[in-house]
Amino acid sequence: MYKIYGFGLSNYYNLVKLVLLEKGLPFEEIPVFPPARPDFLLKSPMGKIPGLEVDDGRYLSESQVILEYLEETHPEPSLYPGDPFTRAKTRELMRIIELYLELPARRLYPAAFFGGSVSEEISGEVRAQLEKACAAFGHLARFDAYLSGETLSLADLAAVVHLPVVSLATRRVYGENLLAILPELAGYLARLQERPCVQAVMAGQKQASTQFIKGSR
Amino acid sequence: MYKIYGFGLSNYYNLVKLVLLEKGLPFEEIPVFPPARPDFLLKSPMGKIPGLEVDDGRYLSESQVILEYLEETHPEPSLYPGDPFTRAKTRELMRIIELYLELPARRLYPAAFFGGSVSEEISGEVRAQLEKACAAFGHLARFDAYLSGETLSLADLAAVVHLPVVSLATRRVYGENLLAILPELAGYLARLQERPCVQAVMAGQKQASTQFIKGSR
Repeated sequence: MYKIYGFGLSNYYNLVKLVLLEKGLPFEEIPVFPPARPDFLLKSPMGKIPGLEVDDGRYLSESQVILEYLEETHPEPSLYPGDPFTRAKTRELMRIIELYLELPARRLYPAAFFGGSVSEEISGEVRAQLEKACAAFGHLARFDAYLSGETLSLADLAAVVHLPVVSLATRRVYGENLLAILPELAGYLARLQERPCVQAVMAGQKQASTQFIKGSR
Repeated sequence: MYKIYGFGLSNYYNLVKLVLLEKGLPFEEIPVFPPARPDFLLKSPMGKIPGLEVDDGRYLSESQVILEYLEETHPEPSLYPGDPFTRAKTRELMRIIELYLELPARRLYPAAFFGGSVSEEISGEVRAQLEKACAAFGHLARFDAYLSGETLSLADLAAVVHLPVVSLATRRVYGENLLAILPELAGYLARLQERPCVQAVMAGQKQASTQFIKGSR
């Protein structure tokens, strides 16, 4: 049985957990919190969450690496389109979501979620990055059914895990949801959020958030 | 025939070019320089170099996406190990090289290569990040033959394109090569640099560098 190391406040942990659930793979959750202790570095050399224990003593880190591995070793239900070019465009969408929307937005999280602050210089820089990335995302994405076409893919699962967090962070810092520039996005995400596996991950996220608030009192 | 958009001062351009050469695929190089003009955004939505024109009017961006696509559509010669777990570890090595060694080192490039400067705060931050990433890289890498074992993989090609640039940047900024903490790395890279395809890419890089210096005079 897979063991997944991390905790429910990490989007990347939640994404790997969601993929395991969508593929119907049994797994155990092992709580790990940052900063990483030295023994965790043997599992995830950069100390990053999540780590996946594939089997006894064999570990993988980096969510994208883990997702490719799960797709290769458990191809059904498939979370990539069958055609290589469409599959590549699906990976391109995931990169835009993770590198150009979620990663810049992280600089807002201390102010948005953890009682910290963000300078005007940084919030301005992030705003410009997010506006550019929204345009790129809108150029590649289809919102009618799923991002890559008629069937669910890893890009949709990345979107439903990361983008609500990005939206909320921008609402809190800028007083408006910067992702609202994509008018079809909210309805598309709401449809995905009806999936039972997504609801299970959201429940775990909420529980982790409650524990975090209690712990920091 | 593939068309690759970009220029030889971009490591990521050079990596895609190297993979095309190693796989023996014919391609045409189309010069594109940053900042991206609006028409290039139709090819690479974030304006990132390289872009690959797969065939008439169909484009891919993001080097990792392009490499996965080339591997899937031209599996011979294979640049990934056959076993899924070893293949995942190869991808993990590539992430460490790109996200945790090359990406932080970019903050040194203005000072190291383009006559700019870097603050002590940033150079200190980057140094700590690179030291941590070197430890992670050393934990996963094998230097006896190739990084993932007995055969050449995409991780080796990423290493030979990115790591000499990272080394040089640290030598120029810190007065010492921070990657020298991995004693087997220099010999391993020198062996890879004997490959004809690597030499062709290095020649293109040198030519681009000469053109850049002439252009900025």
